[in-house]
Order: sequence, then structure tokens, then C-alpha cells
Amino acid sequence: MIERVRLAVVGVGNNTSALVQGIALHRQTGSLVGVRRPVIDGLGVDDIDFVAAFATSEEKIGRDLTEAIFMPPNNFPSLDCDLPRAGVPVTKGLVDATEIDRVAAQLAGAEVLLYSAPSGRPETARAYAEAAYRAGVAFINTTADPIARDTEWLNRFAAAGLPLLGDDLASQFGTSVVHNTLLRLLAERGLTLVSSYQVNLGGTEDFRNLVENPDSKKQSKLNALSASGKVEMAPLGYLPHLKSQKVAHLNLEAQGWGGTAVSLDVKLTVHDPSGAAGVNIDLVRIAASALRNGHGGNPAEATPLLKSPPGTAS
Amino acid sequence: MIERVRLAVVGVGNNTSALVQGIALHRQTGSLVGVRRPVIDGLGVDDIDFVAAFATSEEKIGRDLTEAIFMPPNNFPSLDCDLPRAGVPVTKGLVDATEIDRVAAQLAGAEVLLYSAPSGRPETARAYAEAAYRAGVAFINTTADPIARDTEWLNRFAAAGLPLLGDDLASQFGTSVVHNTLLRLLAERGLTLVSSYQVNLGGTEDFRNLVENPDSKKQSKLNALSASGKVEMAPLGYLPHLKSQKVAHLNLEAQGWGGTAVSLDVKLTVHDPSGAAGVNIDLVRIAASALRNGHGGNPAEATPLLKSPPGTAS
Amino acid sequence: MIERVRLAVVGVGNNTSALVQGIALHRQTGSLVGVRRPVIDGLGVDDIDFVAAFATSEEKIGRDLTEAIFMPPNNFPSLDCDLPRAGVPVTKGLVDATEIDRVAAQLAGAEVLLYSAPSGRPETARAYAEAAYRAGVAFINTTADPIARDTEWLNRFAAAGLPLLGDDLASQFGTSVVHNTLLRLLAERGLTLVSSYQVNLGGTEDFRNLVENPDSKKQSKLNALSASGKVEMAPLGYLPHLKSQKVAHLNLEAQGWGGTAVSLDVKLTVHDPSGAAGVNIDLVRIAASALRNGHGGNPAEATPLLKSPPGTAS
Amino acid sequence: MIERVRLAVVGVGNNTSALVQGIALHRQTGSLVGVRRPVIDGLGVDDIDFVAAFATSEEKIGRDLTEAIFMPPNNFPSLDCDLPRAGVPVTKGLVDATEIDRVAAQLAGAEVLLYSAPSGRPETARAYAEAAYRAGVAFINTTADPIARDTEWLNRFAAAGLPLLGDDLASQFGTSVVHNTLLRLLAERGLTLVSSYQVNLGGTEDFRNLVENPDSKKQSKLNALSASGKVEMAPLGYLPHLKSQKVAHLNLEAQGWGGTAVSLDVKLTVHDPSGAAGVNIDLVRIAASALRNGHGGNPAEATPLLKSPPGTAS
Repeated sequence: MIERVRLAVVGVGNNTSALVQGIALHRQTGSLVGVRRPVIDGLGVDDIDFVAAFATSEEKIGRDLTEAIFMPPNNFPSLDCDLPRAGVPVTKGLVDATEIDRVAAQLAGAEVLLYSAPSGRPETARAYAEAAYRAGVAFINTTADPIARDTEWLNRFAAAGLPLLGDDLASQFGTSVVHNTLLRLLAERGLTLVSSYQVNLGGTEDFRNLVENPDSKKQSKLNALSASGKVEMAPLGYLPHLKSQKVAHLNLEAQGWGGTAVSLDVKLTVHDPSGAAGVNIDLVRIAASALRNGHGGNPAEATPLLKSPPGTAS
Repeated sequence: MIERVRLAVVGVGNNTSALVQGIALHRQTGSLVGVRRPVIDGLGVDDIDFVAAFATSEEKIGRDLTEAIFMPPNNFPSLDCDLPRAGVPVTKGLVDATEIDRVAAQLAGAEVLLYSAPSGRPETARAYAEAAYRAGVAFINTTADPIARDTEWLNRFAAAGLPLLGDDLASQFGTSVVHNTLLRLLAERGLTLVSSYQVNLGGTEDFRNLVENPDSKKQSKLNALSASGKVEMAPLGYLPHLKSQKVAHLNLEAQGWGGTAVSLDVKLTVHDPSGAAGVNIDLVRIAASALRNGHGGNPAEATPLLKSPPGTAS
Repeated sequence: MIERVRLAVVGVGNNTSALVQGIALHRQTGSLVGVRRPVIDGLGVDDIDFVAAFATSEEKIGRDLTEAIFMPPNNFPSLDCDLPRAGVPVTKGLVDATEIDRVAAQLAGAEVLLYSAPSGRPETARAYAEAAYRAGVAFINTTADPIARDTEWLNRFAAAGLPLLGDDLASQFGTSVVHNTLLRLLAERGLTLVSSYQVNLGGTEDFRNLVENPDSKKQSKLNALSASGKVEMAPLGYLPHLKSQKVAHLNLEAQGWGGTAVSLDVKLTVHDPSGAAGVNIDLVRIAASALRNGHGGNPAEATPLLKSPPGTAS
Repeated sequence: MIERVRLAVVGVGNNTSALVQGIALHRQTGSLVGVRRPVIDGLGVDDIDFVAAFATSEEKIGRDLTEAIFMPPNNFPSLDCDLPRAGVPVTKGLVDATEIDRVAAQLAGAEVLLYSAPSGRPETARAYAEAAYRAGVAFINTTADPIARDTEWLNRFAAAGLPLLGDDLASQFGTSVVHNTLLRLLAERGLTLVSSYQVNLGGTEDFRNLVENPDSKKQSKLNALSASGKVEMAPLGYLPHLKSQKVAHLNLEAQGWGGTAVSLDVKLTVHDPSGAAGVNIDLVRIAASALRNGHGGNPAEATPLLKSPPGTAS
């Protein structure tokens, strides 16, 4: 029988809620609904145990991980399954570099540290990476802050035989992948794109942060589109009632043979945290497998699951 | 300078209207809007001359091809370009096998015969194929009636060094290609399809015929979908006011990680005849090129442009 | 305290399921969600007791009403509430006129008979109306078969002081009301309708029956639209996976000032049986109140809730 | 024969373009497409002559009105009609109060002054109102700046027998009217609104201004909705490729009987300037008719065409 992965997590937000609950659901029902890779190097979806969790919210600290994931502002729904206590109390996360050794000590029993905090705090990201390094633990950076893209970090982890996966999670299924797929399809079939737009609406804290800091994300989303010259992005809309749902409206106007009009209107509804957890479940197993096989640095298998893997611009 | 293709056409419906007008538009404006392959073996989009046209409608016979394409029930729009007379009067099409030699004689100056009549008249299709064979002309069967899939026909054409392209045109851009693309995308990303439907609405004579004979087409459309077990087809709707437009409503309901809902709603609007002409313009040049190079039978290059190429079931 | 209405029902399909469950839900939660009229002449939503139920399906007969409503082909969902047994076993419905007295005897304790069977069996409808008449019970005909529109029936009930409500239920919220509202809005604002279409998709047995007998319903739906000359109906689509949901796609193309284009695309999703039960809950109380007050015939209050009230064509 | 209305206009933007072209189109074709009221007190749609036009753009000043309406940033389309020169050169608009008498002198031959400049310049609005007053001309304020709501202004105009119409045009057909109609329909039918959102996208200068100053308009739009507590507004999106089109996406989620889900998704596409011109054509004739009949102040007939008529808050 395979040894289960011992996972520590930083950030007890919606994405962690989706991961914790989805594993429990799978364990109970055996369902492989929404699972991209049932087994990775012998590791199944439920071969993962949470061994530590770090957060900064006073309300979450001290509670069992399975309780903390339902504290506001988290708004990912409660899935329809029993959720046995994890026996893992949420620990106070680090606030400055003086605490790195404390965190490293708490990572003693872990194999993988999944860094799933909000983007935009590069120093915090680096401090956790350092703690993982000192503890001999694989590190996954799901934020846009550059760690795995930073050659120095990558080399250090590689030299120590420690996997370093990142940066910035590519959602399992979201606006960019649908929009891009349709733009590419038009081009392949010889149609001429006239105009296109994308509207993104959501109700999570993440979304609220993006709305207040729209420029970087808007540019990043435009970069992700293959025909960006013709694609216009409406400003992100934070609509609290949507909770963890994201709604996108896409429009593509094109011309076919003889210049006649071709038009596509799409409404997409997804749960953003599920899109993250559906990728994290793979990254965690890829990281554990690489660690166990002594492969340090960035595993090639992880690259398609990331927006900014090593080699892309910071 | 390359020798222009001498094209004869059977059927003066919307698809022929789109082909005739689109070539004229390209000739005037040089625009490559909606053109998948600007040049095929040296042949540009406007390197095609119509040399004969056959139809059965009394109203069309005797008129110049450029007039006949606007006679009812044709309802493809008049494109925004001058349309100089073709100097090709529409000729009475054949009604039985006794006229094959008459038609073969009229094909004397042609290189390619594009068979673009309605589906469902296999004897007529075979009679025109025979006429093309006797006249030494390449034959393109855009209907669902089996000619190129029929080994006997294929072997006769191949032995004579005559190209035989068919059967059944795959539209340049239509409901099936969009639906399939999205179904495949869901599968690739590890989502689980729950249900899906497709509604097709149109206003052409072709559409009216399909509505009156829905079963074969409905099955054929289901066959074209990669996840057909979960996909339901609403009955086709003939809505005359749509004229040559086709409108499709697609819905895909899926589950992502944790079983959370993912939903896609799509409205697609296209001009069906443009979707046909945008493929015919390539088939005609592939056929002419094969004929000139002495390659008989089915050119591999044509296969992706056809729904039922040689080797598929009749 | 008000005396509770004693209700008998014919037909134990989706509409009855929605009525039974909705009353139970209201009783438990006090919720007035989706209730148009909380109180009618002193009668609240939960002041209704089922006292008899008639059906023809062998599987339903003999079971408690609260079990029978979940037997196939019923597919209305199970609402999120406890459903205490009604203590009312489903009784074999009448199959011919010889059984009228048997049914009348079984209606002894009832005040109102809600006739909620499928449309298209006028003799059965009349037999139940006769049974209600003999038992001195108010009768509600929710089908399109003419009873209340039939002057003879109406006069008999009126003379006996018995309420007779019908015919043909107008859904609380459905395609026709939305389409009509938008057509009227365009007209009021001075826009010129160019074209419009309506696609209806559903998954109930009712829907399947309509698909197999489309003409009458299609015409009836067109009659219900204020601008029917410009509105086209796509054929109804029976899509089993929709279960008790109905999905409608509406399109309205119009012209505003200067002839510029105005376009409206609507997707509507509802549960058909809820639309019926939300009206039946009002009709039942109107009928009981009229009976108790000695008002025979058709209560004016019921007219807006019906598609074909007395005075309309049969 | 009726005397034609002599109209002066301030602002030569898209709305004026739509008005000028729409009148010309009507004159040529007699078409009443998109016209709410063909005749008002004997005045037809084409019984209007432009006699003066004021603008601030250097590029427009000096050009004939019929040329100036096509200068950027105007992007309302060129309608399909001949547009004979108006013989009215665009005049430099006033920039401060010292020019009021100059403008009043230029209004000598006019009956009505249509103030159709951008909102947000209350002093300019007042200066033009003063010029109209001195010239004895009726004044229409289509902006949100308070003139007709200002009792002092209203009394002055009324005392002088001069009509004063305003403030803030209600579009002939736009997002608010559709959203409100659907919200009201849900309420009337007894459904319970759960949530709703509205996304507005446009490509005009007006839209760009609103995007840069979103708060006031967003609140004003929320005020216009009958169930504003449950309705969320996404930020306005300025998408240049839409030009003078506005695209709105509306969603309404509700609950029907038994708490079952009812959902409405709407896409609306309109030309904003047509929505303005379709109302201005009525306001101009109402103003002229009131002036000719000696009725000063605000004509009751104008009230439903305005967002902030006299009596509403400033």
C-alpha cells in the first residue's frame, strides 16, 4: 500500500476549502467527478493527509481545519458529504522573516507545502519558500508572486533535491481557456475575427481584491488570449451574491466566406475555488512523487498546470 | 501565369450563390476575409471561372448564372459588390439517365464538376458522376448520397486518373464543430459532462427539407458529437425569417472538482451557405490541382473537409 | 380558527407532487417564497388537507399520496422538507361513466375536486365533473378540455350553488408571459418588431405528449402572443434530462428610431409543475371560499388564472 | 398646411446625428419604423427644420450640420439615406455667461432650443437656458443637470409663457426599462427575487465619460430599478469597438412555488443615440406645440419621457 502524502497548506481560504472538502467527498463516495487524473505515480485523489495549516485570520487560528474553511469571508459552499475533523488546528502564519525557523519546525512531518495565500505579498511567499527549504519539504507556489520563475530559488531547491512548483495556478476550467479555445477555433477554420469581449463577474474576496487592483490582472488576462489585439476586457465586476461562483460573458464577432457575419455569445458559470482545487490535487501529487524520487526543481509534468512556469517573464 | 480553373456546377441554390458572389467580391476587393487557404497549389481564390451551370427550376433555366442565384427560394443575401454577368446561362439539369451523354457533352470545356444539389436523390448524383466520368472531368459530391464512399465509383475514377471528392461537405464553421470543440475541452480538462443539448434553427430550403425528414440528419449530427450519449438534440426548427442564417443554442452542464456545477450556454449565428462555399472554394482547387497532376481518386487533402469521406459507412 | 379546505385531486403527476410538497414545505418553514396570495378569504397556503386522490397508474394506486408522487414517470424534484404521510391512499380513477357514482361516494368528505389529469380526454373530464356535481363538490378543470366553457355545465353548477373553475391553467410564470411582456414593451415604446422566435424544451411526460401532438399547442401558444404575425415557434423539444425543468429561448429583433437594430435574447428556466401548483393553490382556495359562501358557477377572481375561462372559444 | 418647427440644437454629438439623419430618412421613405408618436398636435416627424447648431469642437464649427455629425468622436452609423445639406453651419457654442446675448441673438428665428450637450456642466446648461429665455424660445434640457427641476427657472419660463422641458432624457428603449419590466413581472406573478445583476457595455464618448465617473450614474441606475436591494450593478465597460451600440447582460434569479428556481438571462443590444433621438423627436414637437398654444412651464405630456422631471430630487 502506498504511503499517503503529508500535506501542509498556507492559506485557509476558498481554494483550501474546496481541496479539503473535495478529498473528503471522494473518500466517501469514490466519485471521480471532475478529476482530471485519478492516479499520479500510484497516488490516488484521497491519498493525501493534511498535517499542518497556516492562516493569518484570528477567527481561523486554533480551529480545526475542517471548521476554519467555513469562516467568513470564505463562501465556497458546503459540499454534500460528512467532513470528519482533520485533527489539524490552524496555526498562526508567519508575518516576518524572524519566524521562518518556527514555521520550518512545524513542517517537520510534512512532505509538501502548498502555498495558497492571496497574490501580491512576495516577501511572505519567499519566507514560506525558505521555511520549506529548511524543512526539506517540496514547495508549490500557486500565487503570481515569482518564486519558481526566480532562477536563484529554482537552483537552490534543485540542488537540494527538493521540488519547486509554480508560479500562478492555471484554473482547471475558466474564462481564459474557453475564450482562447474559441478564438483558436475561428482562426483554424479560416474565419476573420472582427471583435471580441469578455466580462468577468465574481463574488469572492479574491475577486474583490482584483476589482480594487484591476490593471495587472486585466493585462495578464489579455496576455493569455491568442488574439488579444481584437479582444476587449470589461472591468471585473464584484457581485457579492455570486459568492464563489464566477460568471463570464464572452462575445466573438467574426466574418466567414464572403464577409458574412458569424457570431458567438457564451455564458460560462463556474466555481473558481473548484477550478483551483482541481489543479492543486494534481500539483500536490506531482510534488510528492518528485520528492520521493529525489527529483529536485521543477517537474515538467507541472508546467501545463501553471500560468507562469520557470522560463516565463516575472 | 496560372491557368484558371474551369468549373461547372450542378445546383444553383444558396451555396452556389455564396460561391459565385464570394469569388466576385474577392476579385474586386482582394479581401481574404473568411478564406481558409488563400492559395492551393498556386491557385488563388479568384482563379476560378464558371463554364456551365445545371438546375431544374424553370425560373432559373436560361438566365445568366449571376441572375439565377437570386431567384427564390434562394435567400442568401446580395453581397456588397458588383457582379459582372458570368456569360453562363443556366442549363436544364438531367432528369434521367438517358441524358447523361447530353450533359457530358456540355461539360466539354470543364475541369471540375461541383455537385451541389440537395441531398436525397442518389440516382441523380450517380448520373452526374457518370457524366463527369465520360467527359473526363473531376467530380465533387457535396451531398450525403454515397458516391466517393462507393468503392466501385472510386476505383473507376482512380483508374481513369480522375479525382473524385466526397461525400457530404463539412461546414467551415457550424454547430457541430463548436459543440464538439467544447465537449472535447471539458473532457481534456477533467470535467464530467452531465447533460448537453443542441437546438438548430434555420430558414433555407435545405433546412425545410431537413425538418420534413429529420431522423437521418439528427442521427448524423449526433454521430458527429464526441460525447453523444449525454447530448440531446432538439428537433430542427424551420423559421423562414432567418433566411440563410442558422441560429444554434447549445448548453453544456458539467461537474468540476467536488462535483460543483460548470455550465456553458452558447448562441451561434452563421450563414449556412457561406459555411459551404468557404469549403467548396478549397475542394474545387484541390480537385483541379489533382486533375492537372494526374492524380485520380480521392485526394487526402480533401478528407478533413468532408463528413463522409471514403472509408466511412454509407 | 378557520376550517381547513378538504381537497380531492384527480391525477397524481408532477403538478400534484409540486402542490403536495409545496404545502408541506410551507407548513414547516412558514416560507412565503413563490406564493402570489398568502391569504384568500382567510385561507392560508397550508389550510388545505388532501382527503382523496385518484390515478390510473397501477404503481400509484394503493400507495399513500406522499409516496405515489415520486413514482415514475413523475420527475419533479423532492423538495427539502419532511413529508409526513397524508393518510390518503391513491384510489383507482374512473375509466368509464358507470363508475361516476362510485367516485361521487368517495368524494363525500371533500369540498373541492381539482382535476389535474393530462389534457385530451374530454369524456373523462366530464365524468369527474359529473361526480363532483352529484357529490356537491366544487370542480376545478386545469385541462384544456372544455367544461367551464360549456354553458350547459356552467349553468348546472351555478344553479346548484356549486363553483366550477376552468378551463386550462395559466402558468404562474412561463414562456408566454415573458414573451408577451417583452412584445408589449417594444410596442409601447414605439419600436417596430421585425421578427421573433420561441424555442421550448422540457423533460416531463406532459412535454412528451405535446411533442407527439404539437399542432394544437403550437397554435394555442401563438394565439397567446400579442404580435403573432411576426412570431415563429420552433417545434417543442422533449429532452428527458431536463426532467421537470422547462427551458425557453426567446429572440426579438426590432427597429428603433432611424431603423437601427434592437435585439433581445432571453433564456428562461423554470419548473413547469411549480408554475402549475403556484396557481392551483389559489384556485383551490377561491373554489372553497365560493362554495362556503354559496356562490355557484365561475368566480370572477379565477378568470385571470385561466387560459380559457367561460366565454372563450372551445 | 402646418408651420414647420424651427429647431436650434446645442451639441452636435451622436444624439444629434441620430436626430438629423432619422428625420431625413423619414422624409425620404415615409417610414414610421421606430416612431412612437407619428403626429403630435398636427406635427409630423418631418415637420422640423434645423435653424441653428452650437458646438465646442473646433473641427465641427463652420461645417454644415449634416457634415459635422460625422466628425469624430461621433460614431453613430451613417443611415441608408441621402442627406441634403441643412444650410446650417455649426456655430461656436458659448463658453461663459458674457456670450449669452450673442447666442440669444442667434436664436432669433428659432422656436425650440434642444440642449443636447454632455451632462456635468451645470453652468453651461444655465447659460443656454438664459439665452433661450431672452430669445423667447422653448428650452429642452436632456442632461442630468437641474434646470426644469429648479423651481426658480421653471417659474420664470412659466411666467413668460415659455415651455421648459427637462431634466434628463429617459431612453426610448434601454437597459433600465427592460430590467424594470422583468422585475415587476416577477413580483406581479408572486415570484420571490433572489438576486439580479446588470452589466452595461458601450463604445460612445458618453459611455467613456460615465466609466470615468461611474458613481453617480451607477446610483442613478440603481434608483431606476424597482427592487434595487437585490440588484447588483457591474461596473460600466467602455469597449470602443461597440461604437454607438450598447450591450447589456441581465440576470434575474428567483424562486417560484416550493422554492424551485426560476432564472432569466437576457442580452440586449441597442443603439444609444437612437434611443435618445426617438424621445427628442417627441419632446421637440411637444415643446413647439406648447409654445404655439401659449402654455409656459413644463407640459405634462413630457413628464413620462424624462428621468428627472419637475418635482424630483436634484
